[in-house]
Amino acid sequence: MKSIKRVEKVTSHLSDFGQWYTDICLKAELIAYSDVKGFIIYLPYGYALWENIQKYLNYEFQKTGHQNVYFPLVFSEKLFQKEKDHIQGFSPEAAMITSTGQKELFEKLVIRPTSEVLFSQYYAKIISSYRDLPKLYNQFCNVVRWEKATKPFLRGKEFLWQEGHTVHATEKEALDQTLFAIQLYEKLGKELLALPFVCGRKTEKEKFAGALITYSIEALMQDGQALQAGTSHYLGTNFAQSFQIQFQDQDHQNKYVHQTSWGVSTRLIGALIMVHSDDEGLILPPYIAPIQIVIIPLQPKNELVQAEAKKIFDDLKTTYRVHLDLQNKTPGWKFSQYELKGVPLRIEIGARDLAQGEVTIFQRYNNSKNNFSKNTFKAEIPKLLKTIHDKMYQKAQKHLEANRRQASTYQEFKDHLQKKGYVAMSISGMDAEIKIKTETGATARVILETPLITPNCPVTDKKAIQTVLFAKSY
Amino acid sequence: MKSIKRVEKVTSHLSDFGQWYTDICLKAELIAYSDVKGFIIYLPYGYALWENIQKYLNYEFQKTGHQNVYFPLVFSEKLFQKEKDHIQGFSPEAAMITSTGQKELFEKLVIRPTSEVLFSQYYAKIISSYRDLPKLYNQFCNVVRWEKATKPFLRGKEFLWQEGHTVHATEKEALDQTLFAIQLYEKLGKELLALPFVCGRKTEKEKFAGALITYSIEALMQDGQALQAGTSHYLGTNFAQSFQIQFQDQDHQNKYVHQTSWGVSTRLIGALIMVHSDDEGLILPPYIAPIQIVIIPLQPKNELVQAEAKKIFDDLKTTYRVHLDLQNKTPGWKFSQYELKGVPLRIEIGARDLAQGEVTIFQRYNNSKNNFSKNTFKAEIPKLLKTIHDKMYQKAQKHLEANRRQASTYQEFKDHLQKKGYVAMSISGMDAEIKIKTETGATARVILETPLITPNCPVTDKKAIQTVLFAKSY
Repeated sequence: MKSIKRVEKVTSHLSDFGQWYTDICLKAELIAYSDVKGFIIYLPYGYALWENIQKYLNYEFQKTGHQNVYFPLVFSEKLFQKEKDHIQGFSPEAAMITSTGQKELFEKLVIRPTSEVLFSQYYAKIISSYRDLPKLYNQFCNVVRWEKATKPFLRGKEFLWQEGHTVHATEKEALDQTLFAIQLYEKLGKELLALPFVCGRKTEKEKFAGALITYSIEALMQDGQALQAGTSHYLGTNFAQSFQIQFQDQDHQNKYVHQTSWGVSTRLIGALIMVHSDDEGLILPPYIAPIQIVIIPLQPKNELVQAEAKKIFDDLKTTYRVHLDLQNKTPGWKFSQYELKGVPLRIEIGARDLAQGEVTIFQRYNNSKNNFSKNTFKAEIPKLLKTIHDKMYQKAQKHLEANRRQASTYQEFKDHLQKKGYVAMSISGMDAEIKIKTETGATARVILETPLITPNCPVTDKKAIQTVLFAKSY
Repeated sequence: MKSIKRVEKVTSHLSDFGQWYTDICLKAELIAYSDVKGFIIYLPYGYALWENIQKYLNYEFQKTGHQNVYFPLVFSEKLFQKEKDHIQGFSPEAAMITSTGQKELFEKLVIRPTSEVLFSQYYAKIISSYRDLPKLYNQFCNVVRWEKATKPFLRGKEFLWQEGHTVHATEKEALDQTLFAIQLYEKLGKELLALPFVCGRKTEKEKFAGALITYSIEALMQDGQALQAGTSHYLGTNFAQSFQIQFQDQDHQNKYVHQTSWGVSTRLIGALIMVHSDDEGLILPPYIAPIQIVIIPLQPKNELVQAEAKKIFDDLKTTYRVHLDLQNKTPGWKFSQYELKGVPLRIEIGARDLAQGEVTIFQRYNNSKNNFSKNTFKAEIPKLLKTIHDKMYQKAQKHLEANRRQASTYQEFKDHLQKKGYVAMSISGMDAEIKIKTETGATARVILETPLITPNCPVTDKKAIQTVLFAKSY
């Protein structure tokens, strides 16, 4: 007797967005849970998404002269304590190695939650002249932060990321680098992930522990909650002063270096899922999809059909990530399976279509089917993929714009917040920000570079100093 | 005043092999030390070597259907204890997370020294039928082992590696997979690293904790010491029984799966250095070299020379990893610098050569210089690189063969061992192996599939059961 497995259905996103999300993560086989809470297993299909992000960034880094390195997983507690804001921000969630199977360690070791202190210590050793600058290092690695509430990809005790750490002779150069990184992330969103972001500066309250300026890209999920998807920090000379990273400049003066750090993580995969997918499962934009095209013979035992399917597979496989499914399962099962997995294009090869010189192509992003001539469809594929990518980006962009409001009164702010999405308001500063967070649960996402909406802050009635985009967020 | 830095010289390998090795690691800027002993920083030039090994293996894995995944950094102590031999082998050197910045953990967590238990636990959850088999997973990651004596690349508390973990329905299939992996490593050595290995089974004493069979590739360093450079394990049903990984076979019987695991690490980079380099520094085989060709204009301010150098650079950069050095430093300094860094080919562009329509090409592996027509040299480069690679492999192979001896008496064994390198002897088993290790410091590297040299073991005088290749090793 055959064990027949049905393709598993996902929960409706309208009935339970959180369950819908974890259903997709698990049922599309992106991840599995391990036995330690907050640590997930990246399965082949999920890990391939991260590999494609890495490839995209590595390609860009090669053009800009950023070099990959690998710094240690651990550092001493002493090192951690050198920059005060930084340790205050990260210490509570840092994991410690205190012993081995055999004995206690003399000194506790911190597992990196981020690596500013390691890079700073190294830079202090090797930088002495303006000729040693800039240094443009990046590493892909795992980091550990002991988060309480965890959710696959979005927040884990361990996650995978890329962290850039650069050192410059001047403030201007470091500020340019900070902007370079956040613009690179915007480009990554636009070109690979089909994700539009709101990009801007973080408020004093929300900026990175140890930074002077933090820029962030923020994505808006389908449930109207925001997600911080990447950050870029101008560290000024904070770490340089704590670690004594000095250089002799061309004018013979000893000066502190200016530093930046910036990162995106596997969290981007969470955004990808939450922005694009539907109740049938995952919907992947074509350029990041591990399988871009799946070929399904409708009568797999029909020799003509099988031969044609193989021919098309061989034709396409040099250009695209393509999969030919010859499993002994029904076409219906296979359709559901690859819809669940969000494969952008499905080519159905059927005897009837072939008799008419045609194939059927299904597009996952709008669940549409069209017939194409089997002799000419190949030339259409680049256009199809491009259109799918563009439409997915535009749809997400439209959702973002439709859920971006502004408020002139605190009541209006609260009313807008009920509708989910972003609300802009001009505020007096951190006091207003804290009050808003306590009373509404919304946090400052980014500062907008736009004129004030109201001269006074609707929350404190003090003079407004900046317009800030608020939202509830993951 | 300019600060003039000399290219740093390395210690002679004949006077102090250990110092020569670490000099190259540090001065060729492959690594730097961190402040925690045993944890090293992989600098761009060193990390690029590992990236090229990863690319090679990923390309091969794609052909064979091995899929990349990422499993957690940690697991529970309970999980660790499930396979008895395994925990006995790895427990003493396992690092533990016991607390965070805020509080003690309820349960100690083990940082992976290797991930058999994590994969086994996952496989137990997802495998139920022969249709679920095989699973061919691989991960690139960091692992932690609390080694006492550490040496860059060769032995560290943290290292980077690739670990394959596969599951099969039959013993035969798993044994084939075990051999597939070790043969892949031999191919990697032959095609990318120009490293010949002795390949064979480990003795019972030396095999992996938890395995039935371990195959190993062993490289021979220039000082005559062996280095285990990669291993592949047939785990039998050991882990399957401990973790209850069972499947219903086509004959409806429930059976335990057969597993394999196999890995190579950044240790390969240590072998690369110790086998190929000389007293001028690193010598890199061309296909793994991060910079394959460096172009040095001898009169960088001469416009003709500069234009020609740039033209050649543009010509070559689409095909090779090529670097044009326009720094304001003397050609002599640059020559030493790239010799220290082991760049396989140096193209010198000089006014006098150009007047005769020529360029000079320096080959690092034999420190030879030849003139080539500047119009035709480009076509010679693939041949040059291939020849360099082949000659480097042959030289290492010759060294290996010249240092491989056999012994019919224990005294002969000891005499041969004085000359360094490998000594084969037919032994009675583990008792002889232990005696040899205690008395001579040599360990069993691999079992040879050759006829017995002597009917009795020269050490114990008992009946010999196998011929084993011994050596002192790293």
